[in-house]
Amino acid sequence: MTPDLIAAAADRISGFVRVTPILSAPALDAIAGRRVLVKAECLQHTGSFKYRGGKSAVTALMAAGGAHGVMAFSSGNHAQGVARAAAEAGLSAVILMPYDAPEVKIANTKALGAEVVHYDRQTEDRDAIGARLAAERGLHLIRPFDDPQVIAGQGTTGLEIARQVGALGVVQADVLVCCGGGGLTAGIATALADKAPGLRARPVEPAGFDDAARSLIAGKIVTNAPGGTSICDAIVTPCPGNLTFPILQRLAGPGLAVSDEDALRAMALAFRHLKIVLEPGGAVALAAALFQPEAIAGDTVIAVASGGNVDAGIFQRALALL
Amino acid sequence: MTPDLIAAAADRISGFVRVTPILSAPALDAIAGRRVLVKAECLQHTGSFKYRGGKSAVTALMAAGGAHGVMAFSSGNHAQGVARAAAEAGLSAVILMPYDAPEVKIANTKALGAEVVHYDRQTEDRDAIGARLAAERGLHLIRPFDDPQVIAGQGTTGLEIARQVGALGVVQADVLVCCGGGGLTAGIATALADKAPGLRARPVEPAGFDDAARSLIAGKIVTNAPGGTSICDAIVTPCPGNLTFPILQRLAGPGLAVSDEDALRAMALAFRHLKIVLEPGGAVALAAALFQPEAIAGDTVIAVASGGNVDAGIFQRALALL
Repeated sequence: MTPDLIAAAADRISGFVRVTPILSAPALDAIAGRRVLVKAECLQHTGSFKYRGGKSAVTALMAAGGAHGVMAFSSGNHAQGVARAAAEAGLSAVILMPYDAPEVKIANTKALGAEVVHYDRQTEDRDAIGARLAAERGLHLIRPFDDPQVIAGQGTTGLEIARQVGALGVVQADVLVCCGGGGLTAGIATALADKAPGLRARPVEPAGFDDAARSLIAGKIVTNAPGGTSICDAIVTPCPGNLTFPILQRLAGPGLAVSDEDALRAMALAFRHLKIVLEPGGAVALAAALFQPEAIAGDTVIAVASGGNVDAGIFQRALALL
Repeated sequence: MTPDLIAAAADRISGFVRVTPILSAPALDAIAGRRVLVKAECLQHTGSFKYRGGKSAVTALMAAGGAHGVMAFSSGNHAQGVARAAAEAGLSAVILMPYDAPEVKIANTKALGAEVVHYDRQTEDRDAIGARLAAERGLHLIRPFDDPQVIAGQGTTGLEIARQVGALGVVQADVLVCCGGGGLTAGIATALADKAPGLRARPVEPAGFDDAARSLIAGKIVTNAPGGTSICDAIVTPCPGNLTFPILQRLAGPGLAVSDEDALRAMALAFRHLKIVLEPGGAVALAAALFQPEAIAGDTVIAVASGGNVDAGIFQRALALL
């Protein structure tokens, strides 16, 4: 991954992707004990940063000659990002989603014109189903994180952060990033190393799914213990990617891990003080910023609020904590 | 009210006030039957557009020589806007709030350093209490809408709308504005008449509190029937202001009225599709855009989502409608 690849992605997706605002509130600063700046990617088209990577990948594909259609595996945010980008390019999209993906994510993916094919996470082999469908229909697979154009698209978030917090005079800070397979963290880390080297990208994961943090400590890719559960569906992954991990090793860390309860508390505080809707997996970076002050350096912390596709029932659990 | 006064306010408050984004979602366009653009003022500092007017008034006051402190009457949004602006200027602020104002608004106003004095809406005379306190302590009263500098501050929302939707190629559209005393509507109408005359400001009010709409029809200020109730606390006012009404007559209308149920439905849809938190009184413009398509002209409608300071209980009522 290079800054040039991110700059090229930014050129391709400019005018489509929303420049999301940096939000803040005195009450959050008081809780964290330092200034908290929130990059509100939940306000991105499709409700998460994933549209950046989807749009980057689809526009790169079209520039290279197009495809019959695209395919993605996703619990929902990558699905919507790819579905919207495909629809804009006039491509069909097939998305493999687990039956137990959040209802809002399934409904929105279908509304964006994609064909949703369900599978059972416990009993069916996603890769086999995907390979068969892709071969039968001539579909181009867009991976959720181990794809250079996807990482480059997510990296445009980092370009915006560098520019936006630079305008606020912030040149030294931890940038906390909600982390599943590491595409967003790797992209942001690459952009920041080039544009704002005093800003340090750090992955934040759900407790029990802190494979990126532990892989960084181990110096090699390690996986999570099987059988764990988390409400942070968007960022529950077995391990960092083969493309993303070397970038994280070079430019990011150390990682942080957040309990489901703290993710819900961060959602409630974002509701109350920022007026944004976060899903659990999109709130772990803010949770770390608010509730783990001793693990963070500097007088300002930046938290990427990466997504807001949450069902009402989970959101009500968060509100009950207020 | 003149465009010059709004331009001067914009100069004074620039760099303090957030330029809030224009949001949209295909699902909302499908419901409305036309493109819906949402000006997300709930993302403004203090959770509503009221910080614009408060900051404009306080900066004008400071430029004119300052004061011992400021005072405001408010159910909560104007309170927070004035409290934050006063704190930034190093002025004390006393806010008269009804006992039954939303808890989040009372808590946030106190957190911004203001002294909150409560009164009983049914039995106590707010004006008399305010006049006594102002005289005793030498406080400068900042009215919620009948103040030229407040209207000018709210009008900066209109400057942003003209610029932002102009960049999207929209030159002809209804601009629906949540309306209490009419400060926001009057300010936006003045800015649009100057910068984007094809955009028409229209007040949207709660059913039973559509005094602005009926005053525009009557050609004179009329008041609401006593005894009505609405969950739209932010915009429940007896009648348009003496300064705002002539502006509305000249530049705005016709008005629209929205049921509490439709305000809650709009809140739920904004949660689901835009990932923003709206309070009932901040959602009526979006509700009209979505649920009263026959009353609106053109292929695009702009709705100002004016505030998001809502207690969890009311928000849960909205979510239950999904």
